[in-house]
Amino acid sequence: MTSRLFDHHRVAVEALLAPLAQDRAVETLPVSAARIAGAPDAYRHRVLAVDIVSPTDLPPFDNSQMDGYAVRAAELADAAPHATARLQIDTQINAGDTIAELAPGTAAPIMTGAPLPVGADAVVPIERAIPDRFPTGGESPQADGIVEFSAAPRPEEFVRRRGSDVGAGDLLLAAGTSLGPAQLGVIAATGLTTVDVLRRIRVLLIATGHEIREPGTALEPGQIYDSNSAVLSQALIESGCTVVAWPCRSDDAAELLHIVEKGAPTADLVITVGGVSAGAREVVRDALGPLGVEFSHVAIQPGGPQGLGLVEAAEHPNGLPVVTFPGNPVSALVSFEMFVRPALRSLAGFARTEREVLRLPLAESVDSPADKHQVRRASIDADGLVRLVGGPSSHLLHSYAASTALVHLPVGLGHADAGDPVDVWRIDD
Amino acid sequence: MTSRLFDHHRVAVEALLAPLAQDRAVETLPVSAARIAGAPDAYRHRVLAVDIVSPTDLPPFDNSQMDGYAVRAAELADAAPHATARLQIDTQINAGDTIAELAPGTAAPIMTGAPLPVGADAVVPIERAIPDRFPTGGESPQADGIVEFSAAPRPEEFVRRRGSDVGAGDLLLAAGTSLGPAQLGVIAATGLTTVDVLRRIRVLLIATGHEIREPGTALEPGQIYDSNSAVLSQALIESGCTVVAWPCRSDDAAELLHIVEKGAPTADLVITVGGVSAGAREVVRDALGPLGVEFSHVAIQPGGPQGLGLVEAAEHPNGLPVVTFPGNPVSALVSFEMFVRPALRSLAGFARTEREVLRLPLAESVDSPADKHQVRRASIDADGLVRLVGGPSSHLLHSYAASTALVHLPVGLGHADAGDPVDVWRIDD
Repeated sequence: MTSRLFDHHRVAVEALLAPLAQDRAVETLPVSAARIAGAPDAYRHRVLAVDIVSPTDLPPFDNSQMDGYAVRAAELADAAPHATARLQIDTQINAGDTIAELAPGTAAPIMTGAPLPVGADAVVPIERAIPDRFPTGGESPQADGIVEFSAAPRPEEFVRRRGSDVGAGDLLLAAGTSLGPAQLGVIAATGLTTVDVLRRIRVLLIATGHEIREPGTALEPGQIYDSNSAVLSQALIESGCTVVAWPCRSDDAAELLHIVEKGAPTADLVITVGGVSAGAREVVRDALGPLGVEFSHVAIQPGGPQGLGLVEAAEHPNGLPVVTFPGNPVSALVSFEMFVRPALRSLAGFARTEREVLRLPLAESVDSPADKHQVRRASIDADGLVRLVGGPSSHLLHSYAASTALVHLPVGLGHADAGDPVDVWRIDD
Repeated sequence: MTSRLFDHHRVAVEALLAPLAQDRAVETLPVSAARIAGAPDAYRHRVLAVDIVSPTDLPPFDNSQMDGYAVRAAELADAAPHATARLQIDTQINAGDTIAELAPGTAAPIMTGAPLPVGADAVVPIERAIPDRFPTGGESPQADGIVEFSAAPRPEEFVRRRGSDVGAGDLLLAAGTSLGPAQLGVIAATGLTTVDVLRRIRVLLIATGHEIREPGTALEPGQIYDSNSAVLSQALIESGCTVVAWPCRSDDAAELLHIVEKGAPTADLVITVGGVSAGAREVVRDALGPLGVEFSHVAIQPGGPQGLGLVEAAEHPNGLPVVTFPGNPVSALVSFEMFVRPALRSLAGFARTEREVLRLPLAESVDSPADKHQVRRASIDADGLVRLVGGPSSHLLHSYAASTALVHLPVGLGHADAGDPVDVWRIDD
């Protein structure tokens, strides 16, 4: 077992995962609001697989930006407060109406979004017209009505020209764009009904241990419930992955190899938990060491025993990446935070791949092993002080669940006093 | 139509939605890793409906923190480098084994997480034993073997006592806690198989307009594709809501009222889009004004015409809250950001309800109506300068989709020069 600094291990994990960015599989999602509303998870943090070229102009026709009158600006060029210009009121144009023509000498009541009639080149908002409200009668022509204007509109004023947002044939959204409300909306606006996105990274998650049992089953003395599968499933999902959680409740290397073999064809990455420390029986070391996974002791606490490698597997001509975490739930989750989360979030297209880092004073003094990077669980109190939650031991998952921050006590720091500033990661979002 | 400042409208919307925090319905979710992995959306941003009391001690039995030897510390009290203490090697204890007894004068090889044998009160890590590796042969007793120790362990050293993380009957997680990896994990660790969470806020989303059509259908001249349903479905989902998107492709008040009536029993909130401005036919104003929804003009651009109110509805003895947005997609999404998003995220239990606010210099000069709070779309360039994307017009959804930030130009500001600092919201996460 080699020994290494935690940032070296992080770089090694990033290098192992980097090829997953290449040749990503593509999935096609329907872009209908009903589908988005009904299958919300399918659309969160998805990344465009290819450029989308707009199939149409947006807006698709000239239209009005205001409720007002569509006019020919030149006909009102001389309008002034004491010399109003008068126009005959033409047929009202509503949103959804077909494209009309504006007869010379007329002004057409026009609603926001309604198509500008041919001949018109400006819209005067209703509040600037005299009278400043529309003729009653709604849709019927106001053939006898007259509207007056006391100022000249600028040509193009309150007109939205066809294609002024995006033109047919223009790049609508580039490959690599993350889909959010505005992106899904502009795709829908062009009438496209599907979008090609990158398939999520698929993780085969294998919690190991002769002692672990599924929650809800009966425990014999010495057995514990499997919490790692729940912890890391959720952590992986929150980083944009899909997960198959397939625990290995045995110390038998053959059983672990069976799970890897069966799960490999539909996985992009294998993460194991447990079975990597210095014990006499370490199922992950025993099973995966011979396949090329390398184990090392990283100078971090918790989370020292780590491993990684590429193993041969069906459907993986370039090998299947494997990352191994130690088995205590706190160690496993800290390992995920330190070594894997940023890389997975980068692959998923998150704009923020790192935790928010604060530098805040400690509420109390703390000791830390000077030869390791220690990560402690903490909360941030109302005064902005960092208050440790529970001790450093890696079995204190309840303390982790009560925490909102991770405190970093770097190599070389053996002691810090109350009030000393430390780096803190916010983990509460 | 009344006129109001945007922060007044925001306060009014928050007051309208505040009662949704009371008497929230409860849903029960299974806490199995398979279910979490298979139904990820069900677990994201969920909030505990009730306190959870731990049904068990965690850890459930005394166990070893290290791979090493379980010993009686007193028997090694005099151990020193030149006066090693010798103990007979007892049967190896693996994780998952039942609880053994440690005979006096013996040391039992014990693996991390394995149950501490009765009689032992300390664990000596294997690397401090002589020899510093386990006897070969795995599980078989090493009845003839001897292990030596050159230092006295402290009592309790490397022992994890039963209940040291949480005790049976203690509060495991409090009502109101948001579920993340550690919280789901500690629930699983106790063996609980279900968790009671608050039902998500259910939104009936009604995009309106005679002109809107479903993407994929044929458009007549003057018609446009409905983008608002996609925009706001995704925005609502990202704020922790469930959505029924039911467009009203008509200016007929009766049709809108029909949708509200049919959708009300399964909605906590109605959001409409469009039909609220000064036009001659405004379906939302026409239909909902008589029911008590109040419309006002808010001093914001885009997003001026806003409305809100409580309407009578089946299954809603205290009334059904309705919030109305203007119909241009940019106006609707800015309205959502400014008035609704923080309140919904607070109801959903997000730790961060507000956008991250940066104060950054403008890359270029900008004019803004001094009597309105103007919101512009922008990106932040590599030098940290704010670069506007597209103009202020509310039809420029493509520009919005290309933006990563919203720029706030407050009331009173008519012009800002290049280099002037402005408040910017990051919207790219």
